Amino acid sequence: MNVIDTVPSPVHLTAEAAPGQPEPTPALEQLYRGFEQEMLVPLWTQIGDLMPLHPKSKAGAHLWRWDRLVQLAEEAGRIVPVGRGGERRAIALANPTLGGRPFATPTLWAAIQYLMPGEDAPEHRHSQHAFRFVVEGEGVWTVVNGDSVRMSRGDFLPQGGWNWHAHRNAASKPMAWIDGLDIPFAYYTESQFFEFGRESLSAAERIQPEYSRSERLWAYPGLRPVSQPGEQPATPLLAYRWVDTDRALNEQLALEAEGCAATLSPGHAAVRYTNPTNGRDVLPTIRTEMHRVRSGARTQTRREVGSSVFQVFDGQGTVTVGDRQWQVRRGDMFVVPSWQAFSAQCDAGQASLDLFRFSDTPIFEAVHAYRVQIDAA
Amino acid sequence: MNVIDTVPSPVHLTAEAAPGQPEPTPALEQLYRGFEQEMLVPLWTQIGDLMPLHPKSKAGAHLWRWDRLVQLAEEAGRIVPVGRGGERRAIALANPTLGGRPFATPTLWAAIQYLMPGEDAPEHRHSQHAFRFVVEGEGVWTVVNGDSVRMSRGDFLPQGGWNWHAHRNAASKPMAWIDGLDIPFAYYTESQFFEFGRESLSAAERIQPEYSRSERLWAYPGLRPVSQPGEQPATPLLAYRWVDTDRALNEQLALEAEGCAATLSPGHAAVRYTNPTNGRDVLPTIRTEMHRVRSGARTQTRREVGSSVFQVFDGQGTVTVGDRQWQVRRGDMFVVPSWQAFSAQCDAGQASLDLFRFSDTPIFEAVHAYRVQIDAA
Amino acid sequence: MNVIDTVPSPVHLTAEAAPGQPEPTPALEQLYRGFEQEMLVPLWTQIGDLMPLHPKSKAGAHLWRWDRLVQLAEEAGRIVPVGRGGERRAIALANPTLGGRPFATPTLWAAIQYLMPGEDAPEHRHSQHAFRFVVEGEGVWTVVNGDSVRMSRGDFLPQGGWNWHAHRNAASKPMAWIDGLDIPFAYYTESQFFEFGRESLSAAERIQPEYSRSERLWAYPGLRPVSQPGEQPATPLLAYRWVDTDRALNEQLALEAEGCAATLSPGHAAVRYTNPTNGRDVLPTIRTEMHRVRSGARTQTRREVGSSVFQVFDGQGTVTVGDRQWQVRRGDMFVVPSWQAFSAQCDAGQASLDLFRFSDTPIFEAVHAYRVQIDAA
Amino acid sequence: MNVIDTVPSPVHLTAEAAPGQPEPTPALEQLYRGFEQEMLVPLWTQIGDLMPLHPKSKAGAHLWRWDRLVQLAEEAGRIVPVGRGGERRAIALANPTLGGRPFATPTLWAAIQYLMPGEDAPEHRHSQHAFRFVVEGEGVWTVVNGDSVRMSRGDFLPQGGWNWHAHRNAASKPMAWIDGLDIPFAYYTESQFFEFGRESLSAAERIQPEYSRSERLWAYPGLRPVSQPGEQPATPLLAYRWVDTDRALNEQLALEAEGCAATLSPGHAAVRYTNPTNGRDVLPTIRTEMHRVRSGARTQTRREVGSSVFQVFDGQGTVTVGDRQWQVRRGDMFVVPSWQAFSAQCDAGQASLDLFRFSDTPIFEAVHAYRVQIDAA
Repeated sequence: MNVIDTVPSPVHLTAEAAPGQPEPTPALEQLYRGFEQEMLVPLWTQIGDLMPLHPKSKAGAHLWRWDRLVQLAEEAGRIVPVGRGGERRAIALANPTLGGRPFATPTLWAAIQYLMPGEDAPEHRHSQHAFRFVVEGEGVWTVVNGDSVRMSRGDFLPQGGWNWHAHRNAASKPMAWIDGLDIPFAYYTESQFFEFGRESLSAAERIQPEYSRSERLWAYPGLRPVSQPGEQPATPLLAYRWVDTDRALNEQLALEAEGCAATLSPGHAAVRYTNPTNGRDVLPTIRTEMHRVRSGARTQTRREVGSSVFQVFDGQGTVTVGDRQWQVRRGDMFVVPSWQAFSAQCDAGQASLDLFRFSDTPIFEAVHAYRVQIDAA
Repeated sequence: MNVIDTVPSPVHLTAEAAPGQPEPTPALEQLYRGFEQEMLVPLWTQIGDLMPLHPKSKAGAHLWRWDRLVQLAEEAGRIVPVGRGGERRAIALANPTLGGRPFATPTLWAAIQYLMPGEDAPEHRHSQHAFRFVVEGEGVWTVVNGDSVRMSRGDFLPQGGWNWHAHRNAASKPMAWIDGLDIPFAYYTESQFFEFGRESLSAAERIQPEYSRSERLWAYPGLRPVSQPGEQPATPLLAYRWVDTDRALNEQLALEAEGCAATLSPGHAAVRYTNPTNGRDVLPTIRTEMHRVRSGARTQTRREVGSSVFQVFDGQGTVTVGDRQWQVRRGDMFVVPSWQAFSAQCDAGQASLDLFRFSDTPIFEAVHAYRVQIDAA
Repeated sequence: MNVIDTVPSPVHLTAEAAPGQPEPTPALEQLYRGFEQEMLVPLWTQIGDLMPLHPKSKAGAHLWRWDRLVQLAEEAGRIVPVGRGGERRAIALANPTLGGRPFATPTLWAAIQYLMPGEDAPEHRHSQHAFRFVVEGEGVWTVVNGDSVRMSRGDFLPQGGWNWHAHRNAASKPMAWIDGLDIPFAYYTESQFFEFGRESLSAAERIQPEYSRSERLWAYPGLRPVSQPGEQPATPLLAYRWVDTDRALNEQLALEAEGCAATLSPGHAAVRYTNPTNGRDVLPTIRTEMHRVRSGARTQTRREVGSSVFQVFDGQGTVTVGDRQWQVRRGDMFVVPSWQAFSAQCDAGQASLDLFRFSDTPIFEAVHAYRVQIDAA
Repeated sequence: MNVIDTVPSPVHLTAEAAPGQPEPTPALEQLYRGFEQEMLVPLWTQIGDLMPLHPKSKAGAHLWRWDRLVQLAEEAGRIVPVGRGGERRAIALANPTLGGRPFATPTLWAAIQYLMPGEDAPEHRHSQHAFRFVVEGEGVWTVVNGDSVRMSRGDFLPQGGWNWHAHRNAASKPMAWIDGLDIPFAYYTESQFFEFGRESLSAAERIQPEYSRSERLWAYPGLRPVSQPGEQPATPLLAYRWVDTDRALNEQLALEAEGCAATLSPGHAAVRYTNPTNGRDVLPTIRTEMHRVRSGARTQTRREVGSSVFQVFDGQGTVTVGDRQWQVRRGDMFVVPSWQAFSAQCDAGQASLDLFRFSDTPIFEAVHAYRVQIDAA
């Protein structure tokens, strides 16, 4: 079975006169030809790109307008069926600096998913971690391991890897929501598993309960069922309802007004969705948060290792990402690349600017590579 | 500062008649044009590539012969100076399936580094984790935070991120060794920091002690200095000497012969280099091990999530990676991509086949994505 | 400063003819006199007591009736003032097998505390972990680090060690509740710290808010404030309200009726109070739970390493502890010593038997000494 | 089976006129009689004893002289056989302030064990964690789960709970060593399990290998067998040899002399015995260390939560514990109670004062109750 390597070399090296580079000579050219033939690349020609003083993101900041996303999703709803093979009517953000791949950032997938009345997206499971977030609408139930979970505006629905899931639109209107996954991370590191499930849901799974079994077991402040001991890598709670999130954010701002330390900075409240079995992030690779910036307030300017995707949940304001700046409104989505300065300001006339955020921070925390820097005001 | 997006779209979509795909129609073509304009990509055209049933590595298996690596490194030693800017005379393996980039695997960097007599590689530090492994030769001291560490055949020298380090060849002959780092992982996830250090070492750092201070503090079985409490993300022990590694491997085989469970499988001993402050891997992102296959023995066939780089330390044998197979000898290096079946067999006439291995396994363990499968014999 | 030891020996040894014992001889007697003089005790005379085949609790099962506890607390309310020095009008359960000390079990303190209208218990702090549980009544606010926390029937109020706290009865009626602490554990292991606080509360602390600041920050299912990162040894949530506990227990029984695994055993629901920063017990040394046994149902019979104290919160039933059995009703308290078989049965005519339980289990889990055994039905 | 409680009350309360105490009146006396009848004790009479400002150890400092220990052990060797039932010829330190029980401190057992030539101590196992330390002599092998482990001067031999073990004196002379266990902790918290093993060892277990299998697998600096993954609560390494301990201590003092931070304080080196699977203490409940104080040097004065037992391994010096002070020499044993100030000084004429120490610190660290205070010089 001895196979001979005959791959043409993709390595191309050029001897150039430059600071820190060896002098271009015929001997150097010959050396570089040898490198190319043997599939080798020297550090000295690449170090500036590979080892910058701080992350210089290739992934650029970019904004997608919600009205255009919905418009195209509706059009897809009319002409693209949902079924086995394609699996989902999901349309992903393709960061223009990432080569046309459906990657919002180097590690994160973000897509709008769209389901017509009566449609089912078939059951499958995959090792990639996922969540759904609902910026508007209702009527779809996601069925995770047979547990039907209602999806309504403001709800956050995490779903750890390798759980069976299908979606069902039980309403008379189409519904759109966003999906977030770690598909690019798993793709790049080559760690994906996938399995097809049943073609259709059982009658018992086609019900539309107000609350899922997971919520009835787990959705209590600081209480857990004694029958479910131990730590689980991904949260067993399948829905985090808007009513709780909204109340938590309001209380932070109220506490701040009473003189208590509760917000991240004046006028900037934020909650993190967590796994009740360990108090950590809901998913091993994805952090998820809801931020509320009070009328007229502005967040601190932060740089963080790792990338984020935001969706405006409510209100209007201005966001600044590195040297880009956008006026944003409900549903708009944008990415903040690694180590780019980010801040957000709520328009004065608005009650608040609510921003849903997800990021790859848990990956960096897990390998002790996370850093954050808050710029002086 | 409102900037208008005028990036030409890198997204290119083609409507094709295929199972699981929507029927190509003018409406579909129009939809795809809309996607391209808005920087969107549907899941249904990409799912097979993004979400395979199991990892289908794009990174291929590949072998580099040590004699060619050394030959080219010697040539570089003659014509490429070492100094500030280029920083190191390091020549990296460029996996031909990874586009000509100096990446041995999607996450791992592997290079031969070469230092002429009397040369110093200047001080710097970076967030990327690194190690050196010495397949032959001696005479270089690596100076980590002012601690001079001898490098000799069989020694393994880890160096956690963000530690100052320089190298100095104090001998009268050139010396080559290999470097392993997580440069591709940090590059892809955009999490790199770098800082230049002093131009030259002090007189006190130019000594050549037999044992580094780190060894004198930490290189004892199960003992730690009470003055250094707590857990450290990367090992404080800067050298793992061959004499210990060799003895540990021999004892495993001897214990196996006495009927005790000590080896991974019959004739296959293996030790892992660990961080004495927590018993885990020496570096948060890189696992390192030495394997010994007894004369005539063959390892089990394993598939693992994540990629590995091997270097033959001693002996001769046959290694099989997926559908590739090579006869290998001292110094040869090869990569095992994610989920490709790997086994190694020691030639009958050899005492043993010793394989140094490093892998990105800690990343997957940290995010609960690791899987391993041992094929039936 | 050389002091001469002149303590009379407390060691008393008797040579006895018994299996496993050396033959009583004058030489043995002389040896035992030598042991006594040198403060020594041989293993061979003690091993049966020190190293039994399984825990043979010296602490016996015991029951305290709530009506008697309240009666005596009321009497104390009339004649014993509350103030600096005595600190609290707390009356502790003294397990009769523990020598008259105020220890409910070898590790746990349980007391009824009683506050007259308008009374304040002065501020102090201690390293011992504590909680309050309210079986009936209302009107007292506990003030923890300046945060006023309402106490009402069914509420559970944990308070980690070394937090300042005072109590204030703002109502027109006396109020009783129970305190649980790890006082015996800290006493025996000699690890206690204590500090007196201010003599009186400020006006701002004398308010009676419906919800404490801690609840407004932390009492949400799976949400945590981003401004409070990291893990805390004791829960930051100062009140777990009955409405949540009751609902969680009801839902477990409802889910069981629907065929889902949610209860500990048929008809036996249970929730554990947990620390939202890590999903573990609210206090590092004390586990707290609420159990509900459905009408006519009976729990499994369990033996566990470590001791528990129970209080009947509601309903009536029969509890069995080792060879003791009691008919119990609201407020009754009893202890279950280590490794004694425990079960509870709800009377048929009752809606349910609700049992509040606290135990020292976290200590054993922390040192890997926990065991549990469920007897065959 | 309803049993009526008829235990006579061990509670005895006396109304006394004292600060912080209620005024003695007939009503108070009547209340106290009620408390006694109902097995209740008020906090206000006990708080000074239960909740001191800092630990006020009831366990006193005490010293046992090695020559007397050995003398009595020899005598026991002559007249007390070793066998099933008594199990071990172990003679325990009974701290005179702990009521004549064989408890060196509230949590720790310390004993001299003595085995005559040719004697076997029979096999058993128990949940209590144990270790042996050899201050002098040789010739005994401890057999742990069938692995024969040599015991020689300076060796430390830990043995986690629930492992089978026997001891065998294969030499022509008696041998003494010390045992340390957490017997008092397990006794007080009622968490002990015990099982008798085989009556005699097999021929294969009666060998006297230089190194145990556990050492051949685990006794390497920073290396672990890949065949033994994961974390283990107690160390799998069954012997920590003096040659390593001695070298580590010498190197710390040498590094200090070279200007490097390696010692705890000037002239005071210390190593901790650790579990190579997690870098933590060898046993979940017992910390073990070897300290070396250089000629003429003096340690800092420390107070720590929890208790320690020391044995002088070599040299002579003065130790100060609270208000006690002793001149000590090889083999002498003493206890340092919780929060008592401890320091040690090496006599000027001695090479060094070597102190073996074990303590219950891991228990307090596990429940977040540990504190340490270093007194100003």
